Order: sequence, then C-alpha cells, then structure tokens
Amino acid sequence: MTDIPLTTREIHLAARPDGWPTPENFRLTDAPIPELGADQLLVANHCMSVDPYMRGRMNDSDSYIGSFQIDEPLQGAAVGEVIASTSSEIAVGATVLHGLGWREHAVVDASSAKVVDPTLASESAYLGALGMTGLTAYAGLTYAGKFKEGDVVFVSGAAGAVGSIVGQIAKASGASRVIGSAGSAEKVQRLTELGFDAAFNYHDAPVSEQLHAAAPEGIDVYFDNVGGDHLEAALTALNTHGRVAMCGAISQYNATEPSCAPRNLALAIGKLLTIRGFLVGEFSDKADEFAAKMAGWLSDGSVTFDETFRDGLENAPQAFIDLLRGANTGKMVVNL
Amino acid sequence: MTDIPLTTREIHLAARPDGWPTPENFRLTDAPIPELGADQLLVANHCMSVDPYMRGRMNDSDSYIGSFQIDEPLQGAAVGEVIASTSSEIAVGATVLHGLGWREHAVVDASSAKVVDPTLASESAYLGALGMTGLTAYAGLTYAGKFKEGDVVFVSGAAGAVGSIVGQIAKASGASRVIGSAGSAEKVQRLTELGFDAAFNYHDAPVSEQLHAAAPEGIDVYFDNVGGDHLEAALTALNTHGRVAMCGAISQYNATEPSCAPRNLALAIGKLLTIRGFLVGEFSDKADEFAAKMAGWLSDGSVTFDETFRDGLENAPQAFIDLLRGANTGKMVVNL
Repeated sequence: MTDIPLTTREIHLAARPDGWPTPENFRLTDAPIPELGADQLLVANHCMSVDPYMRGRMNDSDSYIGSFQIDEPLQGAAVGEVIASTSSEIAVGATVLHGLGWREHAVVDASSAKVVDPTLASESAYLGALGMTGLTAYAGLTYAGKFKEGDVVFVSGAAGAVGSIVGQIAKASGASRVIGSAGSAEKVQRLTELGFDAAFNYHDAPVSEQLHAAAPEGIDVYFDNVGGDHLEAALTALNTHGRVAMCGAISQYNATEPSCAPRNLALAIGKLLTIRGFLVGEFSDKADEFAAKMAGWLSDGSVTFDETFRDGLENAPQAFIDLLRGANTGKMVVNL
Repeated sequence: MTDIPLTTREIHLAARPDGWPTPENFRLTDAPIPELGADQLLVANHCMSVDPYMRGRMNDSDSYIGSFQIDEPLQGAAVGEVIASTSSEIAVGATVLHGLGWREHAVVDASSAKVVDPTLASESAYLGALGMTGLTAYAGLTYAGKFKEGDVVFVSGAAGAVGSIVGQIAKASGASRVIGSAGSAEKVQRLTELGFDAAFNYHDAPVSEQLHAAAPEGIDVYFDNVGGDHLEAALTALNTHGRVAMCGAISQYNATEPSCAPRNLALAIGKLLTIRGFLVGEFSDKADEFAAKMAGWLSDGSVTFDETFRDGLENAPQAFIDLLRGANTGKMVVNL
C-alpha cells in the first residue's frame, strides 16, 4: 500500500500575467494534505493536462468558468491513483480522472472523479483523445459545426490536441476534403501523415492565400481554434450555408490589445453563415456517444493521437507556456 | 384606358460610387418601352422602394445578388398599375408588386409580378411593412434570431423600415424588454411612442455604455442592421445562449476601409452565442405565415408603420443617398 503523505507540491498562481505568461506568474510550493472528508479520495496524480483555455483563467475576469486565484493552486484535468478513500463508490487502487491537476496529490470529491481503465488506454489518453479534447473535437464538429458528409472542412491549430482530432474525425465521417493550418513544416508533414487532404504552415504566406489554394471551391465548415487572421480567411472561403464552430482563439489569448480581425464578418449575411461559439461543457450528454465512436476510430486506425510529454510538476508552468507557443504536436501532457 | 406610352424615364447607374454615393453616380434618362413579349405586363409604376442593400449592388462585386450594371437601369421593388398585358393570369387594371423599380414604366414577366389589393392597404405598404422589409423583420427575428417569449431584444437601426417592425413584433410576441438604437432625438422619441421599452441616440454616448444602461441584465437577441460598434456592444451585452440575427451592416456600406469592429467576437465562445447571417430570400416559404400575422398586428394596433416619402423619379437618387444617411423614419418610398 502506498504511504499516505502529509504534504505535497502544488503550482500556485503567483501573479496574473500581462500578455504572455512567464515563469514568474507561477510558484512551486509545498502544501499540507488535509484529512479526507466524507466521500473523498486522495489521488496521487500521475499526469496532468495543460490546455490553452487555462490562459483565460489566469486573468481576473468574469468569464464562464471563474478565475484562478492568486496564491492558490491552479486547476485542470489530471489522472492518478486513489491512495486513500472515504468513498463507498471508489476504492483505493482505482485510477481516476478528475479536475485537480497542477499538484502531485489532490483531495477530490468522489462525485467529481471518474474511474478510468488504464488497461484499455494509457492514462494520458484520458486527458486527450479519449477525454476533454477529444470530446471537444467531436461535439464541436458535429453539433456546433453541424458537419455533414461531403463537407469541405478547414481546421486551424490543426496539429494541436483538438484540431488534429477534428480533422481525422471529419475524414472518417466522410468529409470531401479536410484542410489544416499549423505553425511548422514538421506539423504540416504530420497532418499529411494523419490523412489531411491539404495542410499549410501559416508562417509561409497569408492564410487567405494558402486557404484559397488548398480549397479553391471554398469550404463548408471552419473549426476555429485560432481566431484572428484564420477566422478572417475562413469567412472569405466559406460557401453559402457555411458554418463556423468557434472553439478557441489562441491567437488572441496573450494579446494586450483587442484584435482587429476578422474585419469581414458582414460576409456572413450574404452567405447565410452560422457562427456558433461553444464549450465542451455543453455536450456532456454526448460523452457516451463520443466514447463509443472514438473507441471505434482508435481501434480501426481512423484516428491516431500524438502526445508531447514534459516531466515533473516543476516543469508544468513551462509546459503551459510552451503550449501557448505551439511547441506541442497533439496533446501536451505533464507526467508527475 | 391609360394611353400606352412609347418611352419612359429610368434611373441608370452612371458610375460606381467610391464610398458614399453621389448624384453623379446616377443618370435620369429617357428609354424606349419595348413591345411586350409573351406573358408580360406593362406596369405604370406608382411608387418604388429604396433600400440600403442596393448600395452593395452598386459595387462591382461577386455577391449573392449580382451588381447593377453601368448604363443600365437600377432595380428594386415597385408597385404600380398594369396598363397593358399579354398574360392570361394578370389583367389590365391590376395593381402589382414587382422588382423593376427605378423607372416610371416597367415591362415585367407576369410570373415575377404579384397582384396586391390597394383597397386593403396603401400601395406603399406593400414595399414595407406588408412586403420585403416586414418579412425581413419577422423572419429574421423569428428564424434567424430564434426569438422566444421573455427574451430581451436589442435592435439597431431601430427607427428604420426593418428595425421599427422588429421591435414592435418583439413586443407583440412577448419580449420582456425591447431596446432600440437610432440616430436622432426625434427617432428615439418615435421609438418610445411605438412601444420600445428603451431607446437611445447612438450619437449621445458610446453604444456599449447606453446599451448597458438600458439593459443592465443583458440581452438575449440582437437584431443587427448596423454592424460595427453596435455589434461589438451587443456581443458584450449578450447573455449565455444569446443570438445575433445579422441582417445588415449599414455602418460599413460606404466605407472605403474594412471595419475594425467587432473586436470582441471571441466572447461568442464563453457565451455559447449563435450568430446567423440571413437574407429575406431564404424565407419566402414564410411569406404567407408572415402576411397573416402582420395583418393581425396592423389591425389590432400592435404594429404601426411609418413612411418617409419623396416625390418624382428624378428625386430617387437623393432619396437613396438620404436613406443611407438616416433621413428616413420607417420606410423610405419614392412616389412616381
């Protein structure tokens, strides 16, 4: 039996970032592990997620999800082993997915934890393709983007955790063409290997130019992870009755000035576009449907997921900063 | 019987405008009236419509509707009397609504003309509240904006032909609050008379400020006729699951540079917004439903429509230019 520690290490928010986050915004600190209350688990975290949406929580803002608080541990998905339990539902030894990452041990309400099977897939897969980012891709494409067979799909941030799954799901579901934008030649190469019909490096030339070359007959769905110039290019490329699934806008997360793009939103009128902002939390009722489909796609090879690993809680802040700069291919995971 | 003339007067596009249109972009000219072909009508136009969307047709662009051509007559809705007919369906003496305005006489395919009853409503009403602008308001609010009872509705260009109908329909349909933005104190006063719960003059202070004061608990539907700063303010004010019905963007029609607003489109993500560009032509299947409802609303006083009249074809260009500058309250109509 694992010894129950009395203290653990956590990453706290030291100061709110102004623009790009820096290591000084985070503090690695020792913290006591409290006694378990009723129906709680003590989890030894094995891996934790870093995701772009966390940048928004570092701001002091009145958003949909609440801010991280100064001098408190950050939060996010994590997978680990239950080493103590006062729950009758989840026993010691279980592997659980929960929301208290950014720390080596977490006290979690059993009702907020989900038992996962580490023999079916790696623990990290439950942070990505089998977890939140996979569901985001599936639900966003299907329900926000209202994807249908034959659509031409463009996805930005296509080499990231969500984007790479979007493109593969679209291909597996009968898209007539899938185009991805990413930030390096290596990523573009990877997208081609993953089955994208066309992929381009947005640093090479204006997005609008490259998108038109890749989709001369226009696009039907744009899955937006980036915003800005990508959204503007997509609005020009979209065909009548086109749809935008607005998932994220990573090009703006570290901006200190508001963005001027897209400047052509009025195109939505003549093209009868639907632009739908969405959050994965809207689609928890689709989780089972997604899990079944993703199991099939992983099993038949329609979907392959990549992961970029960093090791050690002390490296989690840099992993997050590097994620925002596009250092990852696929899901960025911090092993603990 | 009306004498059948051999010539008529038309307004031709003389040159494409650069920015705001000027009288020099239009030419009043005599034109021969051709012989009727099969199933055609010669219509003596009594009144014609000028609408903001026509500004887009003056550009040389690949839009949804096709450009006006240089040295050819402009087009738009008109109502007049049939003075000659080769149609077995529509006889001399009928009053018809058709698409060849900007001229005193038009040769129209009978299949493109709709017989209207001038004893039920004024002829000009069929250009506005009972016609295209009324249907735009109804279908846009209902089907693009997915209005539901209890919604708080904000409409820009609220004193115009479409906006003034949107606000009244929303009140009649159980909106909990209807707010309108317009460009003068007189228009704001009129909106209050028409039943808007709140109305403001966008010249008085930033729209975002005035909108927040008028709707401190936020809005649920934004009916957008203006774009730009109004759309930006609305995105901030919209509540979760809010909807934007993008009808027009008159603040940008005469711009020579692309617009920087809205800069906050990414708010759509956290608020789960649906932004739907639409055109009235999508909803011709709703025309009968609309006609029945509008007849009821006009009859019970829920909806009152205003009209601003100009007289004479030679004054049509200025009527259009003045429309773009907001000279009208309600529907701008040119009597011929």
